[in-house]
Amino acid sequence: MYALLERIDSPDDIKKLNAAELKQLASEIRRYIIETLSSHPGHLASSLGTVELSVALHYVFNTPDDKLVWDVGHQAYAHKIITGRRQQFPSIRTYGGLSGFPRMDESKYDAFGTGHSSTSISAALGMAMASKLQGNESRQHIAVIGDGSMTGGEAFEALNNAGVSKSNIIVILNDNGISIDKAVGGLNRNLTRITASRRYNELKERVWKSLGGHEDDGRRQRRTGLFQYLTFMAKTAMLGEANLFEALGFRYFGPIDGHDIDDLVTTLEKMRDLKGPRLLHIVTKKGKGLKEAERNPVAYHAPGLFDASTGQRHSACSDAHPPRYQDVFGHTIIELAQQNDRIVAITPAMLTGSSLNMMKAQMPNRTFDVGIAEQHAVTFSAGLAAQGMLPFCNIYSSFMQRAFDQVIHDVALQHLPVVMCLDRAGLVGDDGATHHGVFDIAYMRMIPGLTICAPMDDHELRDMMYTAQQPDMGPFVIRYPRGEAVNVDWHNDMHPLPIGRGRQLREGSDVAIVSIGHPGNDALRAAELMVSKGVSVAVYDMRFVKPMDTDLLSDIARLGYKRIITIEDGVREGGFGGAVMEYLSQIGCPTPVRVLAIPDCFVAHGSVAQLKHDCGIDVDAIVEACQ
Amino acid sequence: MYALLERIDSPDDIKKLNAAELKQLASEIRRYIIETLSSHPGHLASSLGTVELSVALHYVFNTPDDKLVWDVGHQAYAHKIITGRRQQFPSIRTYGGLSGFPRMDESKYDAFGTGHSSTSISAALGMAMASKLQGNESRQHIAVIGDGSMTGGEAFEALNNAGVSKSNIIVILNDNGISIDKAVGGLNRNLTRITASRRYNELKERVWKSLGGHEDDGRRQRRTGLFQYLTFMAKTAMLGEANLFEALGFRYFGPIDGHDIDDLVTTLEKMRDLKGPRLLHIVTKKGKGLKEAERNPVAYHAPGLFDASTGQRHSACSDAHPPRYQDVFGHTIIELAQQNDRIVAITPAMLTGSSLNMMKAQMPNRTFDVGIAEQHAVTFSAGLAAQGMLPFCNIYSSFMQRAFDQVIHDVALQHLPVVMCLDRAGLVGDDGATHHGVFDIAYMRMIPGLTICAPMDDHELRDMMYTAQQPDMGPFVIRYPRGEAVNVDWHNDMHPLPIGRGRQLREGSDVAIVSIGHPGNDALRAAELMVSKGVSVAVYDMRFVKPMDTDLLSDIARLGYKRIITIEDGVREGGFGGAVMEYLSQIGCPTPVRVLAIPDCFVAHGSVAQLKHDCGIDVDAIVEACQ
Repeated sequence: MYALLERIDSPDDIKKLNAAELKQLASEIRRYIIETLSSHPGHLASSLGTVELSVALHYVFNTPDDKLVWDVGHQAYAHKIITGRRQQFPSIRTYGGLSGFPRMDESKYDAFGTGHSSTSISAALGMAMASKLQGNESRQHIAVIGDGSMTGGEAFEALNNAGVSKSNIIVILNDNGISIDKAVGGLNRNLTRITASRRYNELKERVWKSLGGHEDDGRRQRRTGLFQYLTFMAKTAMLGEANLFEALGFRYFGPIDGHDIDDLVTTLEKMRDLKGPRLLHIVTKKGKGLKEAERNPVAYHAPGLFDASTGQRHSACSDAHPPRYQDVFGHTIIELAQQNDRIVAITPAMLTGSSLNMMKAQMPNRTFDVGIAEQHAVTFSAGLAAQGMLPFCNIYSSFMQRAFDQVIHDVALQHLPVVMCLDRAGLVGDDGATHHGVFDIAYMRMIPGLTICAPMDDHELRDMMYTAQQPDMGPFVIRYPRGEAVNVDWHNDMHPLPIGRGRQLREGSDVAIVSIGHPGNDALRAAELMVSKGVSVAVYDMRFVKPMDTDLLSDIARLGYKRIITIEDGVREGGFGGAVMEYLSQIGCPTPVRVLAIPDCFVAHGSVAQLKHDCGIDVDAIVEACQ
Repeated sequence: MYALLERIDSPDDIKKLNAAELKQLASEIRRYIIETLSSHPGHLASSLGTVELSVALHYVFNTPDDKLVWDVGHQAYAHKIITGRRQQFPSIRTYGGLSGFPRMDESKYDAFGTGHSSTSISAALGMAMASKLQGNESRQHIAVIGDGSMTGGEAFEALNNAGVSKSNIIVILNDNGISIDKAVGGLNRNLTRITASRRYNELKERVWKSLGGHEDDGRRQRRTGLFQYLTFMAKTAMLGEANLFEALGFRYFGPIDGHDIDDLVTTLEKMRDLKGPRLLHIVTKKGKGLKEAERNPVAYHAPGLFDASTGQRHSACSDAHPPRYQDVFGHTIIELAQQNDRIVAITPAMLTGSSLNMMKAQMPNRTFDVGIAEQHAVTFSAGLAAQGMLPFCNIYSSFMQRAFDQVIHDVALQHLPVVMCLDRAGLVGDDGATHHGVFDIAYMRMIPGLTICAPMDDHELRDMMYTAQQPDMGPFVIRYPRGEAVNVDWHNDMHPLPIGRGRQLREGSDVAIVSIGHPGNDALRAAELMVSKGVSVAVYDMRFVKPMDTDLLSDIARLGYKRIITIEDGVREGGFGGAVMEYLSQIGCPTPVRVLAIPDCFVAHGSVAQLKHDCGIDVDAIVEACQ
């Protein structure tokens, strides 16, 4: 069934193939990815777009000695398959199986781990400078980066340095016009214009041929330089369009068809033999080879289960289930924005993931997708707020780490009313270590002047959003998890919540559980289970991490429980439990406190249930702590 | 003495001046800045470079209704002087006086607070989109940003969005080739080439004149568009040089002489009447008007006291004083790099500030100034480490907030041996709220796998640096303060320190002080003072925040002190004291613990001694806590 692919155990096996076989291999890999992911969910569309590129790179370059860094890395499935991980591939993103992203500890072919965007050029440049210092002038260092990731500021910082570095670095710009959602901004427009010009490409072809192509090694470099200069002149003169990369000092090649393996191999071989910073602009189709995915790359970014032959997605939804927190957010922000015309929404490239696509459709002028640019997203929100608007800036918890300084410096220090909605807070499951939103309680809690809360269910999420847009609330953080909320009938009437006030969810006399956010549901379940064991457990939901309800904590201290247990889905160091413990210690509360939180290590990928178990923050762990 | 300046109480007074008077005003402002700063230290060279620009902007635009955002903001002194703060100006950067940076709560003319770099375009764009939504199409939103700050990734993220925004935004690129230290990278080279071309500028002049200049309002816009197009064509054709800003969708004007007030006014008036994103490239001289400062803008960035007429700096140094921690770092890194050829050093634009300029002079290939680009600096270091090098990445504590995600995602998760040296940790004094390095203990402590330490004196700093470069140390953080260390004879023989081990500095039986880093010196002083009061105070220096010496803490708990006091120069929430308290609570230690740390609010500017007093972390506060 996979006649050729089954013989590929490492890139060495690829180097023996002829042109026709390379094509066949690409086709088999594509089929294998579709087959496998149809029953083992993963990032589909991105990896389908880079099949030919993966084959061509390992054919042309001497990996793993040449270093290959995949930006973000969810497009590296073909790379994984042909670097000795073919048979493990169906385990991708499952507990104990392959990671959905490159990891240095998974394979020597993964030169650098990724997950968050826009790091690859920096990393490759670091490696290139190291090779240079070590006297290795021939090793190649390749960063593959999408046009979406290229809008992230770090990529620009790296280009700015690489362009003048004289280092052996090759950047492959994988241009598919998509950054999970449709790509945005000036860079994208620049790329489109360059690519769209038939005249430019025709001229380039003619100039190239008139120079004699590549037949002569000795003259290749000089000619290519001249060729580049002429094509650049032609392009700018004919298009009136500047090229960002040339402006920064890169030698620019392309655009070429990223699904034409012959062209890729020829171009990469030519580029390999040159020196200095080079950039190849390839144009690919996200979802290539699966019609449904080509038509709708946003939905097929990570489609879940689907039919491998038709591409039809299997719906996992049912009306009897509670909605996802994301959907509740998406509907509620529209409801609030209809009532309060100061409200605007901002997302860094996660329109669909955050469910802001609904607001974008209804209120396009008040919904801003700024591209993968978390730092800008936060300061831009602060600017909107400084001018009287009330921005809801929705950023995944682990991505907000990128804008930590902007939250301090632009929002909190100026006490501007920006509502920071941290989606994907807590353990996210399959995406693993880079994507768990487990640091946010700790990194937000230290910032003066923030109000920080976490809903236990969909009704609370709505009430917190409602509260955040009340007058004079200042900077406001709402963190909520990925996935299913609690109430099937989620559409409650919204009420303002008293700031910094917790509540008692359940009475009890032996043990007190103090929870924050969604894990409160586990606390309630554990308390129920303790009834049969004859232990009476009270449950308190603090609702707010900051300001913390110290009156309620003092009450709990006074009530003389035998034990106090805190539960959270964030890191222990500096987290919620630590805050509770600090306060109780300060008032001299003699009750022993047990903190249940993510331990001080990175958590890998797997189901949320499994990971919660491993971290000791599931119902069983709470039950055990109660005994 | 300042005949004209004394009549300027607001920008309204400037609007009445004629061309000659504008020039005179600029000259008086420049003199006033030099006079004042010679005896009241501040950021001199940057502000001297923007005098004419400040006057021209307030002359042309309708501030404060038009919004003016100064990137970084230490170049905004002239702006402060002509917006009603002339008489308070000598109080700049002193306790209770004017801030050294724009602050929204200081003046309505400060449209957005700054301090860290590269935020101005994001903020101005946010304001511009707000104005648009509010139906105000005429309000102008202006970001003034240096070429150094332009290399920061957030500026690019913002340009990428602004270029396609159709918003009323004007970016003034203040190009002086300097970003505290000399500017670096592809962008800088791009600007230099554009500016250097006499041919381009001559052609531009001719084309401009042939189009009839500006005599006709109605035709102005169309002609300017054509003019832009022609100059762009000419420039790219003649220089073979692309323009980054045009590539991103900005209408580019310039370069013009930023000290020619007539030209500035004419160009700004022309630009004011256009629509959409516009960028004006002005070329200025940092330190303009003070010869010494023009010659050496790096030294005169913030020169301290100097002679207003000659520019000669007053030396504050004396051999009898201990060296600054910065100097100890600068000498020691060279010493280590001479012995260990895996060591390289990285700084984001702080060669001089961090004292890496000495290593740059001796080992240029092993010292990397990456420009203002903290995110890139950290991932670039991780790339170097992945390829076998041992990078010392030196970043000011408050600027490392910019690279928080990269520390987690690229360094810690992959356990790469990057030594992160956090300079300016703790309270920094005059620079104030944006620059205090008070969050680092808390934001680093939560990251798995880091070793985090802080030296109490120069000998310890050297020993910690020596320890960090031992084999298999993994990611390592050393935080140390700005300014004077402890020992005059700082050049000790270096020894490796045992990881995660603290030490007892002083014996005592009543009270135990547990300190981290430089504040340990205050703890010792306080303990001495307590002798006369009959209280016996022990002092423990933990040395490591992570891993923490829990054996030592257990010993302290067992010894039955009447009180335990922790002291640190970082934030209380999630900080060092919290970590100590959490552990002691966990082992059921009944001794009351008192945490001395920065309280949960932003700390303004002033002398370090004053601020320590206000925060309750000086010797007096420790003494009081011991009683």
